[in-house]
Amino acid sequence: MAKKKVTKKKTAKKAPTRKKVVKRRTPATKRKDTATKLNELAHAVADQVEDGKDPGVAIPTRALSNVSFDQKAGLIRMGDNAQRRSFFNLGQAKKFMQTMLVASGSNALIRQAKTTSIRDLFYHCKHTIAGTRENTFDEQSESDPIIEDLEVTLGSLREELGLFAEPKGAMVGPMTIVDNGDVIDLSKMGSGGWAVPSIVEDHVIQFKRGSAKFVLLIEKGAVWRRFSEDRFWEKHKCMIIHGGGQPPRGVRRLIWRMHNELKLPVYVLVDNDPWGYYIYSVVKQGSINLAFESQRMAIPDARFIGMSSYDMERFEIPKAVTINLNDQDIRRAREILNYPWFQKKQGRTYPWRNEINHMLKLGVKLELEALSNKDFSFITEHYLPRKLKDKQWLD
Amino acid sequence: MAKKKVTKKKTAKKAPTRKKVVKRRTPATKRKDTATKLNELAHAVADQVEDGKDPGVAIPTRALSNVSFDQKAGLIRMGDNAQRRSFFNLGQAKKFMQTMLVASGSNALIRQAKTTSIRDLFYHCKHTIAGTRENTFDEQSESDPIIEDLEVTLGSLREELGLFAEPKGAMVGPMTIVDNGDVIDLSKMGSGGWAVPSIVEDHVIQFKRGSAKFVLLIEKGAVWRRFSEDRFWEKHKCMIIHGGGQPPRGVRRLIWRMHNELKLPVYVLVDNDPWGYYIYSVVKQGSINLAFESQRMAIPDARFIGMSSYDMERFEIPKAVTINLNDQDIRRAREILNYPWFQKKQGRTYPWRNEINHMLKLGVKLELEALSNKDFSFITEHYLPRKLKDKQWLD
Repeated sequence: MAKKKVTKKKTAKKAPTRKKVVKRRTPATKRKDTATKLNELAHAVADQVEDGKDPGVAIPTRALSNVSFDQKAGLIRMGDNAQRRSFFNLGQAKKFMQTMLVASGSNALIRQAKTTSIRDLFYHCKHTIAGTRENTFDEQSESDPIIEDLEVTLGSLREELGLFAEPKGAMVGPMTIVDNGDVIDLSKMGSGGWAVPSIVEDHVIQFKRGSAKFVLLIEKGAVWRRFSEDRFWEKHKCMIIHGGGQPPRGVRRLIWRMHNELKLPVYVLVDNDPWGYYIYSVVKQGSINLAFESQRMAIPDARFIGMSSYDMERFEIPKAVTINLNDQDIRRAREILNYPWFQKKQGRTYPWRNEINHMLKLGVKLELEALSNKDFSFITEHYLPRKLKDKQWLD
Repeated sequence: MAKKKVTKKKTAKKAPTRKKVVKRRTPATKRKDTATKLNELAHAVADQVEDGKDPGVAIPTRALSNVSFDQKAGLIRMGDNAQRRSFFNLGQAKKFMQTMLVASGSNALIRQAKTTSIRDLFYHCKHTIAGTRENTFDEQSESDPIIEDLEVTLGSLREELGLFAEPKGAMVGPMTIVDNGDVIDLSKMGSGGWAVPSIVEDHVIQFKRGSAKFVLLIEKGAVWRRFSEDRFWEKHKCMIIHGGGQPPRGVRRLIWRMHNELKLPVYVLVDNDPWGYYIYSVVKQGSINLAFESQRMAIPDARFIGMSSYDMERFEIPKAVTINLNDQDIRRAREILNYPWFQKKQGRTYPWRNEINHMLKLGVKLELEALSNKDFSFITEHYLPRKLKDKQWLD
């Protein structure tokens, strides 16, 4: 599709009857763009039918072969390869139909000014084809990749289509936002915090005033709570946010927006284990699976503030609270060691290679909670303040 | 311990130097009670040592053998059996030490007026015993059951000790609460909602004014979002809350408090599958594993509003969106069918047995999202309003 963008712009314009249905305060200009692109796609296919041609769409290839690391931008990027998916092809007919159904479902969603889960959309599109025993979809594992196809084909994030996954994560800090029309002071959210929704695009969330100087992403909710309870965000003027492990898209996208729109530096605080490095890596450069989204999710400037494999010595953490690396950890660490974005040279050293090799040499991993061995608030009162002060981070 | 409650009240009183350390607005009377009980425990043990006796504590037995269903109260209850855990017993010495360490860690937490995760507490208590290679704890799987032991021994919930698990879940609705001193209007929480914290005891969360008439617990976050986006809570004057699957303790306890303190009826909306029945069952009667907490968590009056195995016919849901029961589902359903609290008779029928048997007869399960096949908002605009109006629930 990407190459055919110009074909049908005029016809597409009459499409959106959607304004009548908009119930709430969503300016939703981006969703309107997405609706326009969806209509272009539909009209292009309809034109092929009218012209007596085999209808089809060009879907950019989502595979490792079509992905590369953009050294300059510091992002994982998708290449230009695309494949035609057409109706009169026995191997593609079903997928073609499914693509049209998902596109149609997404369009219905935008016209109704609603959002829904990817599971909902699966059920929305699932039915038995009249006169047969064949279902349009049998499993959600069929519709999920089609959603990704549609994202890359249209150049729209799924959030712009109105699709989301299970929400996860919370945020507090000195900032006032508008969420779906409600003004929310994130410094007055008690112990629970504001639950970060899946869709945080600017038609839903707008940033208002605030005094935050940086964003701190914390791997785990339980550790985040320590920072919240100790009011770290107040003393250090920052937003604290967690995503319950690997941060979901909503959390990543929100941090991206705070970084790019509000120019806030981003610090990532994770366990010292290969999984922690990987979480940081995805926040920083994007994931290989979804390279397409990197440009609008990845934060190449994100800093790794901890835990570092050198922290054990720096902070005199007792051996008893470390955990031995298992075979899977070692395999994973070696894999990550070879990621192109961890090959950065600084002067004569490779700080990231050193970091990971040092963990391998010690043979142990270290969780954030291990710092509680010193004192419950050691992490908020000593560990992080010192690391920030001494600029002990990697990027 | 329960039988020795009176022993040492006087000495215990001098303990709390904690008021000096309280930084925030927590009246924390309950935690003070817990601190008193912890001190009684410690003094009882110290007295045994001083008297030259084998120090030990009586821990109520947490096993199926010590659990029964209280028909009248509609709760799973713990019996009176207890076991002595003492120091001069080779098989118990380590556990006795661990019990003292966890008690001491919990006490430190209360004195500092802090809360922390159960993983944090594990690390806090973990160290290598001087002059040996023996650790006090090796895995969290050792400290977690000790926490439960301590809960039942003291008769305090872990939340009163200041311990929590990963937070999960969100809530919105027409109610204003105070969370850790912050006044929060839950009708103005945007699309994200208020993240329900793990500790919702009344020293943290207080209910203020509100116009909610009932509480709706929704199994999944993604479905909850549909209700939030459609502002179901506004039209139907209710609190909507989810716990991301099996609701965590914080969510259960918060619903319990709204039910008991605000007299709000509770409706549970889950998938129509054995797992959904089980979630309802835990909300209603408590779980067998943690029978002790039932009295302060279980809601015997909670109503099962859906999805029922009869809804497929009632709402003409197409066969294509159902999922066949697998062997595990069938096994699980039969198990649940025999739970004592599902044997209730109404007139001449057994509504719960009918419900579960009907699902087994149909041989399919049905997810909440399947209703999207009709329309994205079918669930909020037709399904639930009709079920509420027609009183189509089970209890």
